Amino acid sequence: MADEQYREAVIDLLGALAYGELTAFERLADDAAFAPTIADKAALAAMAVAEYNHFALLRTRLTSLGAVPEEAMAPFTEALEGFHERTSPADWLEGLVKAYVGDGIAEDFYREVSAYLDESSRALVLTVLEDTGHSEFAVDRVRGAIAADPKLAGRLALWGRRLVGEALSQAQRVAAERDALASLLVGGVNRSGADLAEVGRMFARLTENHTKRMAALGLSA
Amino acid sequence: MADEQYREAVIDLLGALAYGELTAFERLADDAAFAPTIADKAALAAMAVAEYNHFALLRTRLTSLGAVPEEAMAPFTEALEGFHERTSPADWLEGLVKAYVGDGIAEDFYREVSAYLDESSRALVLTVLEDTGHSEFAVDRVRGAIAADPKLAGRLALWGRRLVGEALSQAQRVAAERDALASLLVGGVNRSGADLAEVGRMFARLTENHTKRMAALGLSA
Repeated sequence: MADEQYREAVIDLLGALAYGELTAFERLADDAAFAPTIADKAALAAMAVAEYNHFALLRTRLTSLGAVPEEAMAPFTEALEGFHERTSPADWLEGLVKAYVGDGIAEDFYREVSAYLDESSRALVLTVLEDTGHSEFAVDRVRGAIAADPKLAGRLALWGRRLVGEALSQAQRVAAERDALASLLVGGVNRSGADLAEVGRMFARLTENHTKRMAALGLSA
Repeated sequence: MADEQYREAVIDLLGALAYGELTAFERLADDAAFAPTIADKAALAAMAVAEYNHFALLRTRLTSLGAVPEEAMAPFTEALEGFHERTSPADWLEGLVKAYVGDGIAEDFYREVSAYLDESSRALVLTVLEDTGHSEFAVDRVRGAIAADPKLAGRLALWGRRLVGEALSQAQRVAAERDALASLLVGGVNRSGADLAEVGRMFARLTENHTKRMAALGLSA
């Protein structure tokens, strides 16, 4: 953390991730309202609580890095709130697809970036990216719904594509505005980063994983 | 728990309380969306998590009493959802008043009923009724808002009265429908309960505490 640009970049990354976890908490709690059974409602609530616990871990780390957590999160609230406003699920299934496909691509991205972090920051990022049981739950419920009503697949596939489009447009905006964060990936004065070919391969991996997730739901990407 | 009517009554009570905690979780998470700052949002999320943890304790106890938690909660979902639909807060302050005043009167009621429970059930009920820090938070924020804009007091006082009216009308419905639960308070074949005078004193205490809470917010009851 002696490199000030690196320290700023880590604080940016943890700030973005922390606000992401806090909004994930809110969204899962919102989705719980759509749940068709009390057991499903309780399952969603438990996942929301797991996201909150991740948020609390990140906040603690931000403080120990000498940052004010609220200030570290502030640059990312607009992009994250913007994303959620533009992708507000209309029902239970859209909420599940959003949580699985949308969070999945964000998590893959953070996991890729974590390769460029110091060991301790990387360990924290990988901990908070751990699946809270949501993936299996979403896959099970969405596949079940499509099996019962195959017409759903078309609408949900379109929804999945829209989610990725909106996520990319917000991510581009953040990358353009936050030099420190972008430098994590592409390197800085004293650190080497990914070259253009590596960034290209990273996007190929993100796309490939996204396609796998859509397939797991029974949807075409 | 040898008395089957008593066992049913306890399962009813814990089921009602469990669903109440689950909806409290949802409401606090919803209210977090209105929060004016990230710190306030995180504070509300932490309180929501505490409610979820209470819910999980109650669910475990229901299972250990041989009940299916979802079935124990089911008779109370309509009244609780009905209450929340009819008292959906329009903004951050209405949400805080609802959480403080509405939950306050419900908690007082459960605390009164807990006097008629066996020791182990009473200990559990008192644990899940513990304040999760919400009261102090709500009082602080609502008083601060009224100090800044005294005109708010009239609207919020009306809101507080409406909350109590709706809560009582749902509670009456539940009491009329759930004989086992009502028998906790008024006694059963083998158990003595409260006489009419004691029920009257209980309502007087509930009303008095409600008036104190409204006063703590700076509102007339």
